[in-house]
Amino acid sequence: MSKNTIIMFSEDLDRAMASMIIANGAMAMGNDVTIFFTFWGLNLLRKKRKVKVKKSFMDKMFGMMMPRGASKTKLSKMNMGGIGTFMMKITMKKKKVQTLQELMSDAKDMGAKFIACTMSMDIMGIQKEELLDDIEYAGVATYLGEADKGTINLFI
Amino acid sequence: MSKNTIIMFSEDLDRAMASMIIANGAMAMGNDVTIFFTFWGLNLLRKKRKVKVKKSFMDKMFGMMMPRGASKTKLSKMNMGGIGTFMMKITMKKKKVQTLQELMSDAKDMGAKFIACTMSMDIMGIQKEELLDDIEYAGVATYLGEADKGTINLFI
Amino acid sequence: MSKNTIIMFSEDLDRAMASMIIANGAMAMGNDVTIFFTFWGLNLLRKKRKVKVKKSFMDKMFGMMMPRGASKTKLSKMNMGGIGTFMMKITMKKKKVQTLQELMSDAKDMGAKFIACTMSMDIMGIQKEELLDDIEYAGVATYLGEADKGTINLFI
Repeated sequence: MSKNTIIMFSEDLDRAMASMIIANGAMAMGNDVTIFFTFWGLNLLRKKRKVKVKKSFMDKMFGMMMPRGASKTKLSKMNMGGIGTFMMKITMKKKKVQTLQELMSDAKDMGAKFIACTMSMDIMGIQKEELLDDIEYAGVATYLGEADKGTINLFI
Repeated sequence: MSKNTIIMFSEDLDRAMASMIIANGAMAMGNDVTIFFTFWGLNLLRKKRKVKVKKSFMDKMFGMMMPRGASKTKLSKMNMGGIGTFMMKITMKKKKVQTLQELMSDAKDMGAKFIACTMSMDIMGIQKEELLDDIEYAGVATYLGEADKGTINLFI
Repeated sequence: MSKNTIIMFSEDLDRAMASMIIANGAMAMGNDVTIFFTFWGLNLLRKKRKVKVKKSFMDKMFGMMMPRGASKTKLSKMNMGGIGTFMMKITMKKKKVQTLQELMSDAKDMGAKFIACTMSMDIMGIQKEELLDDIEYAGVATYLGEADKGTINLFI
């Protein structure tokens, strides 16, 4: 059984989809997949609803400006003030392509390990209560330990 | 003989050049190289001329807004409405650096395998007739099979 | 002892920090780390002060428009004309997170190998005198040689 790791650095809809399609493909082939969410990628793990937590002014500001969860992310290109992302979502629905939320939930169901980078959480002022349940928390050493045994290690 | 894989996710001139320089270097060293073109990266494989195919309204719109082939891509930074990309191309020509089209054609000649991601083609409404001849078509499972044996696997 | 390589293609503050945090973590675990700075990533190696060298008009223009060193780079997202980057730096200081310059200098002290891509230097008109001392110079073949033995190879 191969081990595969992905550093999910970006929050973009297109990059996150690519990441999850690779992860789910790998799981389907029987591989062991770990996705390490860091920096902007952490936003993919945020709960959709606002969670009340104590924060500094700066952390509140960052929190407000960043997307809350997979359903709020935009395309990295052709977003055009939201129009491009909206059009892409409609066309994906018509073509019966899974949404990013569905891809992420499938990944979890198939057993992919989601790890939130604790150092990035600190920098961006994101707290555990704000992130999806049923994920793990760790730092770069954990990532390196897994990736060292990985046959495929991607930074997305 | 090592195997190397690249997921060509971006369409940017600079990223595509980096990708092809790595690929051609690897081929020159006798490695076996597979480049998997997905999402925006698919645009690098589009034919320069418009190809008549039946498309939905939405797919036509996407097709119009996305660059048609390697000669139409822009820098990811300092594009400045095209001026930066134009300046970069002039300076590259003066310094006798290969163009992206030349790099891609060299890669093919040396035997690099170009694979267009069929799932992305479906999402973006791109059809086989619109892409360069002499490429292969496959999905994520094919990529994973190759990358699992790869010594170098990059996501660009 | 594992070997790890990073292609530092981007110049963005966030991506460069991710890169250095991974590199320093890997060094701390006893791994051997090589970072190959190419394209925009070269700007991270530029000296802060202007260095007098003979350049063509075009090379001078590029040189002026690109950031000079790690202290001048911006966030890839939420830069907002510099405000977002400034806010991020303040919040990082308050949280006692190392600056990018400190992370880079730690990486060097711990023995990470910094290689400037000579082909990119040529394209972007950057000369050795303009880059930090105590780095190495090489092309893609050197990168491929190292990455071929690497357990973790990332493109950032």
